[in-house]
Amino acid sequence: MTITIALDAMGGDHGPRVTISAALAFLKARPEACIALVGQPDAIGGELRRLAAAPSERLQVVPASEVVRMDEPPAQALRTKRDSSMRVALNLLRDGRADACVSAGNTGALMAVAHFVLKTLPGIDRPAIVTALPTLNGHVHLLDLGANVDCTTENLRQFAVMGVIVAAAVDGKERPSVALLNVGVEDIKGNEVVKAAAQLLGNSGLNYIGYIEGDGIYTGGADVIVCDGFVGNIALKASEGVARMIRAFLKEEFGRNMFTLLAGLVARPVLKAFARRVDPKRYNGATLVGLNGVVVKSHGSADAVALRNALEVALREVRQNIPDRIRREMEPSPQRGLA
Amino acid sequence: MTITIALDAMGGDHGPRVTISAALAFLKARPEACIALVGQPDAIGGELRRLAAAPSERLQVVPASEVVRMDEPPAQALRTKRDSSMRVALNLLRDGRADACVSAGNTGALMAVAHFVLKTLPGIDRPAIVTALPTLNGHVHLLDLGANVDCTTENLRQFAVMGVIVAAAVDGKERPSVALLNVGVEDIKGNEVVKAAAQLLGNSGLNYIGYIEGDGIYTGGADVIVCDGFVGNIALKASEGVARMIRAFLKEEFGRNMFTLLAGLVARPVLKAFARRVDPKRYNGATLVGLNGVVVKSHGSADAVALRNALEVALREVRQNIPDRIRREMEPSPQRGLA
Repeated sequence: MTITIALDAMGGDHGPRVTISAALAFLKARPEACIALVGQPDAIGGELRRLAAAPSERLQVVPASEVVRMDEPPAQALRTKRDSSMRVALNLLRDGRADACVSAGNTGALMAVAHFVLKTLPGIDRPAIVTALPTLNGHVHLLDLGANVDCTTENLRQFAVMGVIVAAAVDGKERPSVALLNVGVEDIKGNEVVKAAAQLLGNSGLNYIGYIEGDGIYTGGADVIVCDGFVGNIALKASEGVARMIRAFLKEEFGRNMFTLLAGLVARPVLKAFARRVDPKRYNGATLVGLNGVVVKSHGSADAVALRNALEVALREVRQNIPDRIRREMEPSPQRGLA
Repeated sequence: MTITIALDAMGGDHGPRVTISAALAFLKARPEACIALVGQPDAIGGELRRLAAAPSERLQVVPASEVVRMDEPPAQALRTKRDSSMRVALNLLRDGRADACVSAGNTGALMAVAHFVLKTLPGIDRPAIVTALPTLNGHVHLLDLGANVDCTTENLRQFAVMGVIVAAAVDGKERPSVALLNVGVEDIKGNEVVKAAAQLLGNSGLNYIGYIEGDGIYTGGADVIVCDGFVGNIALKASEGVARMIRAFLKEEFGRNMFTLLAGLVARPVLKAFARRVDPKRYNGATLVGLNGVVVKSHGSADAVALRNALEVALREVRQNIPDRIRREMEPSPQRGLA
């Protein structure tokens, strides 16, 4: 089966310079995939020429005259830019001309436009952003990462259901465990929404294992962790910030003097193996779950390696048929547990 | 001037075994300090004997028959344990027999009991937990770290005022900059409380510099960062979790085989210098600001080195007279800016 990904070629901090070289590398490695490069034909054409590449059966160019700026208010992007690369890419997905959409553009705008164009799945009130994060012994799926700054208890329950479906599909787990992110593990901890969500999840038929604290994200105690988008976004970005600071400190220490430079040279293979393990590029590509279609958001600052990972995430989610799985799970039918 | 610290000798995961050796090391290094060890006399006496130490003019033992368990509900600790080491230590502070109180016990209980015994300063509705965290170029004061899971706009404003006073006193800065933690830096980002707090801080006379995202905590862009206790707690603990995971990965990579072990041996001094820089012990000791008195909370799992750091934080805050500075700042007087 051929899988076509609509790629917002103009999105992200670097635009076509990154998106197109990522697309070419991806197509080379994935013969079953096609890509529709969506954006301004001149910019795309110029970059293709620079890379000595050309459109082909597997690499179409779909014109879109406008670009959503990285700092543009979502409402404005939605109202005024009907021919943006982001919007046209999502239209392709809606119209069945693509199987997934990948964008490194403005997160808020992507969420707003995707929500408007694709609509949520039946039974899902709000889409959420989910990504896999490394843990001591594997990875964990964390959601929501910023789509919803205020959440109800029912929103959190739906996030849990969707997170479990993603974990079951991606990791092939029977009954993925799900936890709520909280400021403590005792029953009395947390705000009212989290406490009520704990009640709801306890009676949901999900493999709910209770509260987990911020440091528990990385110890691998749960397959899925649920929180509102404000908390999830701060947790994710604070984590990125610490990791970056630690890498900077390590580099500084090895760069101090002749001896430390030499030590760094000796330790180089080890340090490289280490750097690979904590490389955020490997975890680039967050999914907007709960929509009628697979939409993957890449980090705005992603380079070609990182963006290619987002394309891989999209490919995997199409293969796993995540939206359909969520649709089936949310169908009203009494007393039904998760597979 | 002699400064007396009431130390909850029973608090923390390790109790007297850690608190007393930290107290002895601290007294040795700080001839101007005295400590009141508060707790069960048998346990304290046994540990003193084990360390070949004895009570003295600078090291008194103040008996308290009960201990607040680490998992005890705050309300229960407050209602039923009137002779707990935590409570008695706070009583000493209230009665002027100590200048500060340090405890590694149950955070929620410490907050509840301290609030009850000491009361908040005039103009402060709720105390907050503040700590210094390392950044690329120094450190930042983050609050609230978990005292208040739900906050109003006015709470956040008061946290900003207190954070700025702490930063000014501790770092000797003229007009410390203060930012609000948010899910984006644009005006439209965030929930209603944060947006309203931005308005309030913009008109406050404080050196308010706008929103900062999670990764901005560690880049050193602000002297003080304000958020509600739910978000602050998750940000702090997620950061700790990532740092711990990264250290574990680094250790694993250097422990892989003969060659990597050898490389680790060569790089050992560099790795040790690095480890010192990211050592959480150096940052142990969070202050409960907004109370009538200096109260410092140590991590429950603190060892003697870390606990000693919490004692240093208490000493510094007494010298800087933080509660008095907050009291003066909050005195009603129109059009007054922060010193």
